[in-house]
Amino acid sequence: MRTVEWDYDRNGLWLIDQRLLPAEFRKIFLQDYREVARAIKDMVVRGAPAIGAAAAFGMALAALHASGSSREALLTFLEEEAAPVLKASRPTAVNLFWAVDRVLRAARNATGGPDAVREAILREAQRIADEDVETNKRMAEYGAALIEDGDVVIHHCNTGALATVDWGTALGVIRMAHEQGKRIHVLVDETRPRLQGARLTAWELEQYGIPYDIITDNAAGYFLSRGEVQKVFVGADRVAANGDVANKIGTYMLALAAYDNGVPFYPVVPTSTIDLSLPDGQAIPIEERDPAEVLDIQYRGRPATPAHASARNPAFDVTPHRLVTAIVTEYGVLYPPFAPELRRVVEMAEKAR
Amino acid sequence: MRTVEWDYDRNGLWLIDQRLLPAEFRKIFLQDYREVARAIKDMVVRGAPAIGAAAAFGMALAALHASGSSREALLTFLEEEAAPVLKASRPTAVNLFWAVDRVLRAARNATGGPDAVREAILREAQRIADEDVETNKRMAEYGAALIEDGDVVIHHCNTGALATVDWGTALGVIRMAHEQGKRIHVLVDETRPRLQGARLTAWELEQYGIPYDIITDNAAGYFLSRGEVQKVFVGADRVAANGDVANKIGTYMLALAAYDNGVPFYPVVPTSTIDLSLPDGQAIPIEERDPAEVLDIQYRGRPATPAHASARNPAFDVTPHRLVTAIVTEYGVLYPPFAPELRRVVEMAEKAR
Repeated sequence: MRTVEWDYDRNGLWLIDQRLLPAEFRKIFLQDYREVARAIKDMVVRGAPAIGAAAAFGMALAALHASGSSREALLTFLEEEAAPVLKASRPTAVNLFWAVDRVLRAARNATGGPDAVREAILREAQRIADEDVETNKRMAEYGAALIEDGDVVIHHCNTGALATVDWGTALGVIRMAHEQGKRIHVLVDETRPRLQGARLTAWELEQYGIPYDIITDNAAGYFLSRGEVQKVFVGADRVAANGDVANKIGTYMLALAAYDNGVPFYPVVPTSTIDLSLPDGQAIPIEERDPAEVLDIQYRGRPATPAHASARNPAFDVTPHRLVTAIVTEYGVLYPPFAPELRRVVEMAEKAR
Repeated sequence: MRTVEWDYDRNGLWLIDQRLLPAEFRKIFLQDYREVARAIKDMVVRGAPAIGAAAAFGMALAALHASGSSREALLTFLEEEAAPVLKASRPTAVNLFWAVDRVLRAARNATGGPDAVREAILREAQRIADEDVETNKRMAEYGAALIEDGDVVIHHCNTGALATVDWGTALGVIRMAHEQGKRIHVLVDETRPRLQGARLTAWELEQYGIPYDIITDNAAGYFLSRGEVQKVFVGADRVAANGDVANKIGTYMLALAAYDNGVPFYPVVPTSTIDLSLPDGQAIPIEERDPAEVLDIQYRGRPATPAHASARNPAFDVTPHRLVTAIVTEYGVLYPPFAPELRRVVEMAEKAR
């Protein structure tokens, strides 16, 4: 099954509830676009490509249940009410905005009345979802060519099937190398505060039969400095025009440690994650989430922080392009200088649609 | 009270049980040197200087309860049984070996029978403990001069009163600056896996009334890259002759992020933590602890890792001296090149005894 999947019998959206894994595998069924926005905000669904697809289907739900009977009333509602609510759910991953804008464009371009608009939106959302899986498999082929038999790789956060519609980005590369028969061992950064590595990536690797060890985020530098790691693969939430990469908090320090030890650092990035409108990573808005995500941690069954402790909780950081060895996209592996290369692949993606 | 304190009425050792904080403040009383070794291994007591003092008092307990009636039998027991057990408790912090060897030397130098030896050992252990507090206050004075009014500093692990006999090393510097009336805000790395920052440093900062925010270890790079941090202060478990610093896992990546942003990185290091016998950090033995420390973490009240997950758990890493701005010792602040400076202060410490 897919992480984000439209139900054509019941006209609604299935999401795997990622807050419960690995303890419990449960799907939730949504029929209101505001529930989709909340699910994105609460990280029921997370991972830039999965958020994009979920938001696109959220727009389909909004269209489906909109009361307006005229085409213009429906378009106005979608543009001025539904889209802003979905776009406000999270600020950093650009796929969210990209996907919502894409279905809005399809809606505007649809000829006919409100039903034609509704149909066009659902069709475009489904296309975004299907393309995501296709894109991931193409990136996986390109990326897997970078992996050699016997490699130990570090992976941060979760970028697998759970972070996408299916298959995954960075984890998809690792999975492809494994399916090609290459022996690979993954050091899984646990990824505090929400432990997407320990919870989700470890769980996925078990499904695929890929050997791994969970490590604290702190330990990545140790293994890199000991020469025990051959490559680092990560995803991305937004890539600026110059190749700076916003990704899950901790990625920047991981990239520094890889660079300091001459270990290649590869973000795996569909073109939907590239934002040419921003010159560099400084311009990428970084979400700061609820301090409770940091503070609500137990140690030996007791609260690990003082009762009135305060915390700061930025969810992403920016890795400067100078630390990036190459960027894996669905149009191939891009090497520096990144700016013209990123422009080229975004144009290719636009032409392909 | 002190973190490590001898009870002269009851002839035993009090330790604050640091596994229970901040939920519970409890002291434990030990009368057997093997219990002291176990307390060090299980991290009832942790922090290089605190471990050193605890081991010295452990030797006093060993001497007190040794059955041998002759001086030579006692010395043989101490050297061949008690010392190896205490030294085997943890491998990285050199203070442990330094302290045990120092009381053994005092024992050898004592004139008289077994009682004179016992007395000499306890006297030397007490001297180590008292010197630790004195040393920390001197380092705090030197280090506090580096802090300016209004500074935001990052601190890793716990290096406060709880990591020493009293007062602390890096946290002692911060405390001194605060007592001098400088406004200071601390970003407290939570320090996975055992959360010494979130549990112990946050708790200590509340006692001292110093404002702080807990951050995940992943987030340090974010705050450094945004120009929100003026200095980084850490402790050390062993410093090699060239200035390479072994410290709590994650320190190396923190140092990389400080260096990448031109933020000074200061280890605060008593001379008892300097090991001139090792040419560089590569030679420092790094403890790898029980994977359960990584795996036994809960997320929203459920296990955060798959049931049969595996993990690796190195407890320390090595920060190369090229990333170190200066080393704060009880004989002043040392700047590169570190090798002759470290030799000089170790000689001063040896002469002072």
